[in-house]
Amino acid sequence: MSEGDEEWSLAFSVSVNAPNLKLYASDFLSGTGDEFTHPISARHRMVETLTVFDDVLIPWADVFFVDRPDLATETALGFVEFHRFTAVSYKLPLLDAMVGAGLAVARANGTDGAGHVRDKLTWLVGYAESVRGLCHLAALRSDVEGGVACPDVLTTNLAKWVFARDFHGAVERLQDLAGGLLVTGPGGRDWRAQEVRPVLEKYLAAAWPGQDRIAVMNLISELTTRSYGGYQAVLAMQAEGSVEAEKIALWRAYEPTRALRYAQTLGGWQEDAGGHHAGLGR
Amino acid sequence: MSEGDEEWSLAFSVSVNAPNLKLYASDFLSGTGDEFTHPISARHRMVETLTVFDDVLIPWADVFFVDRPDLATETALGFVEFHRFTAVSYKLPLLDAMVGAGLAVARANGTDGAGHVRDKLTWLVGYAESVRGLCHLAALRSDVEGGVACPDVLTTNLAKWVFARDFHGAVERLQDLAGGLLVTGPGGRDWRAQEVRPVLEKYLAAAWPGQDRIAVMNLISELTTRSYGGYQAVLAMQAEGSVEAEKIALWRAYEPTRALRYAQTLGGWQEDAGGHHAGLGR
Amino acid sequence: MSEGDEEWSLAFSVSVNAPNLKLYASDFLSGTGDEFTHPISARHRMVETLTVFDDVLIPWADVFFVDRPDLATETALGFVEFHRFTAVSYKLPLLDAMVGAGLAVARANGTDGAGHVRDKLTWLVGYAESVRGLCHLAALRSDVEGGVACPDVLTTNLAKWVFARDFHGAVERLQDLAGGLLVTGPGGRDWRAQEVRPVLEKYLAAAWPGQDRIAVMNLISELTTRSYGGYQAVLAMQAEGSVEAEKIALWRAYEPTRALRYAQTLGGWQEDAGGHHAGLGR
Amino acid sequence: MSEGDEEWSLAFSVSVNAPNLKLYASDFLSGTGDEFTHPISARHRMVETLTVFDDVLIPWADVFFVDRPDLATETALGFVEFHRFTAVSYKLPLLDAMVGAGLAVARANGTDGAGHVRDKLTWLVGYAESVRGLCHLAALRSDVEGGVACPDVLTTNLAKWVFARDFHGAVERLQDLAGGLLVTGPGGRDWRAQEVRPVLEKYLAAAWPGQDRIAVMNLISELTTRSYGGYQAVLAMQAEGSVEAEKIALWRAYEPTRALRYAQTLGGWQEDAGGHHAGLGR
Repeated sequence: MSEGDEEWSLAFSVSVNAPNLKLYASDFLSGTGDEFTHPISARHRMVETLTVFDDVLIPWADVFFVDRPDLATETALGFVEFHRFTAVSYKLPLLDAMVGAGLAVARANGTDGAGHVRDKLTWLVGYAESVRGLCHLAALRSDVEGGVACPDVLTTNLAKWVFARDFHGAVERLQDLAGGLLVTGPGGRDWRAQEVRPVLEKYLAAAWPGQDRIAVMNLISELTTRSYGGYQAVLAMQAEGSVEAEKIALWRAYEPTRALRYAQTLGGWQEDAGGHHAGLGR
Repeated sequence: MSEGDEEWSLAFSVSVNAPNLKLYASDFLSGTGDEFTHPISARHRMVETLTVFDDVLIPWADVFFVDRPDLATETALGFVEFHRFTAVSYKLPLLDAMVGAGLAVARANGTDGAGHVRDKLTWLVGYAESVRGLCHLAALRSDVEGGVACPDVLTTNLAKWVFARDFHGAVERLQDLAGGLLVTGPGGRDWRAQEVRPVLEKYLAAAWPGQDRIAVMNLISELTTRSYGGYQAVLAMQAEGSVEAEKIALWRAYEPTRALRYAQTLGGWQEDAGGHHAGLGR
Repeated sequence: MSEGDEEWSLAFSVSVNAPNLKLYASDFLSGTGDEFTHPISARHRMVETLTVFDDVLIPWADVFFVDRPDLATETALGFVEFHRFTAVSYKLPLLDAMVGAGLAVARANGTDGAGHVRDKLTWLVGYAESVRGLCHLAALRSDVEGGVACPDVLTTNLAKWVFARDFHGAVERLQDLAGGLLVTGPGGRDWRAQEVRPVLEKYLAAAWPGQDRIAVMNLISELTTRSYGGYQAVLAMQAEGSVEAEKIALWRAYEPTRALRYAQTLGGWQEDAGGHHAGLGR
Repeated sequence: MSEGDEEWSLAFSVSVNAPNLKLYASDFLSGTGDEFTHPISARHRMVETLTVFDDVLIPWADVFFVDRPDLATETALGFVEFHRFTAVSYKLPLLDAMVGAGLAVARANGTDGAGHVRDKLTWLVGYAESVRGLCHLAALRSDVEGGVACPDVLTTNLAKWVFARDFHGAVERLQDLAGGLLVTGPGGRDWRAQEVRPVLEKYLAAAWPGQDRIAVMNLISELTTRSYGGYQAVLAMQAEGSVEAEKIALWRAYEPTRALRYAQTLGGWQEDAGGHHAGLGR
């Protein structure tokens, strides 16, 4: 925002039930799935909306500023930088669920001794713990300003970049570990039907009893093959800044002087080669 | 199958409605979605089943063989080798749909001129056309035996390996190209509601009118974020042989003599080093 | 080239020893390595040059055209399109050498039975054979014009794209399969020294005798860790068009109509959405 | 080491010049390159050896223990766990050199404004800073035992795993950013020759003068295409434990209880499914 953007340079708080504030909710979880096949989304409903301000009155007491392009950018970045830390923090339980479900399905299928299974589980562990580690480090590297801890911007963006970059690789490995039963398995009504249940229990058992194995499969389906999983995958790429926006933030947060100086010391070129060494023209 | 496996060494044909043949259908597409948000699965229903032979009578006229371990392996491989060619052939329209939806969403969003968008679209094209090319080549390299064209085994497995290995990368790029609207967009009832539709059309338009842009989004959601997309992703990894089975088939179909001889000529080691050069102990 | 580029729009043939044609050769293989540690480059010398025309006389008989911007682009593309087919064809022996060396080192180390070793070897096979298959297909899909077979442009570019995209992954796997001996092993003078050789043979033997195992290591070092390998890696990325140029060529060669139409049929958007459906604005 | 391994269960210190201790040095940097084309290795010599104890006397004062299988494993792991922290710490300057050289070559070539160049530079930054961050975190998470800080084992292994897994991707991007001049450029004798130098300076200049641009190229060649670069690439995969050993260490250091419990809470299977839930049978 710069001069000329006065009209758009405002910030305020607003109650979600303010008159004329309209929320058009998405459809992605419009039905309530069976708890058997949708162990998460049948109990926990996520809502995304198109939010429209259709002549909403904001009392002056709730206005932070108006007509102030000079404050707008700083405010937007201030929000984003905190929010990215939130964004990656709240993913850690999702990653734990994926790692735990991967470990469990390998045991349930009786394949946990196979080399390629171990390899995929190790990758899942490495992925989840890298994200957790970088998130933790972003907090440890905080600046405390006026009693508020501000997570380190570069490290926060690293954590989010690693999370987003490798999420689909984690989905792929989970589906690989689980097997086709993810999408060929029974629904809840069949499972509860007296005449069907014993057949399913007989044929769907492996190293674990059918009931427990199917419970693991349904969790992995929820996380990777149904609407809830699709929602999480899109969130990984797009929420709290898209992957491309994330890369820009990472690039901006990086201070290149150390690397440039060290390379120059090794390579021996002149500091002012091309006359534009000093800054890195970002 | 070898001696001792007589009891399991049989092959026959059977009608899907034979008495006592039971098919326990999966739940993955149990509801019929709205045509607006489910443009494929609302019209085309895929069924996967757990198939149980519960005292089914097979007339002798339908039996190919019984008690013949010597025929069983050849028959199973014969099936698989043809079926893998089918398996990759029928994926080509899915890949075209993904490429076409990617091209369309970039235009609908007005981002088709951005370098990173072009890069992702090129990757999608390269992926889809590599699979198509290798599938085509498997047919061109067929052996015709007794009037039946047998697709080349190595090339068929290459095509399927490339397809499965990179499928989740294609899903990731499509979701990246499309944006968060994949999971925040409206459902069919909202879209059809007279008082809501104009608002959605106003705010969801971009380079294309809202209606067309949302139609592209719904196709990509169907292909990547909802049950139908999850089904396709699991199929990519697991159907007609899992990725790990695919690797074994690829390894077995490869004739290493040329590569080994050439490397040996360059490197100059003895042909019988270790006394086990001749074969490659697969 | 377009109007105004007359001065640069010329084509001719020239003898490499024409007076005043100067070739400044690169340094990358300036020394002659020992045949023991450099089994390829000690016998085969590659030369790259900076070529300078310093007042070279081109007889009119050798000039194809001059001052013809209208011919220049077509001529350049004509060269590149043929040359890219050459470029990928001549890589096939390199890929065979890499696959053969990988198979051999796994046997020499006695690790060929390990699951992760098999997995890496299978990847190498899949990579090499995908490139070979697509190269073969580019020839099979040739147009024959005036007695000259023109390899299919899209398929040629696919082959080269796959080759370049995954080359460093092949280097990584070969180094992984071989082990640290690639850079800790003895030189030729030590190997030939009477008092040293028996010690080296004793401690460097594994499943193969020391001499044969070291010969495999030296081949892999030549292909991946020394100047010749570095040269090949840069060629993979940069020669006959860089990877980025390759992507542009792939994008241009792709005809998107089928994919766009099929996606539109599935998704149901209007053909003239945004008024720019017809072409794909490349 | 367990009972029966007494003979191999010993630890001691030894001076590198002890009588009869023989070091057979590798050949990988046997020649001394020109400083112009080998800015690092011409000044800094790395030595790797095959070390043979050929009747070496170890005074009892230098022996830590002998015939103690019960101490051997703990000692080996104690060494490795510290050494892996060293191993990843000493890589940070290498990664800085790679990032700095990448930034410099983009400027020297005048391509630093291109989108795909920015994308590759951002990846390099993300890679280098992820490794640095995890290494830093391993120190912050240390246990201090008896005045000695022991870096956290899981985090140390994460840092090393990320470093090794993505190193070849960094090499690929650097070579992509630099261009073919990496292997087609002049040697030191040509560069110093009075009659050749002006020609090279004229034609090899881009956004930076020829001399500075070639200095950057030579540094990148040293890091990625010549013996020193090959040495670093093999070290990345093999030193201080191979990548496969690294994965085993990562797996062992991971405590799965939290992930398993959380997944089970979400999925609702029985804790003792299969009777072997409690531990994770590593």
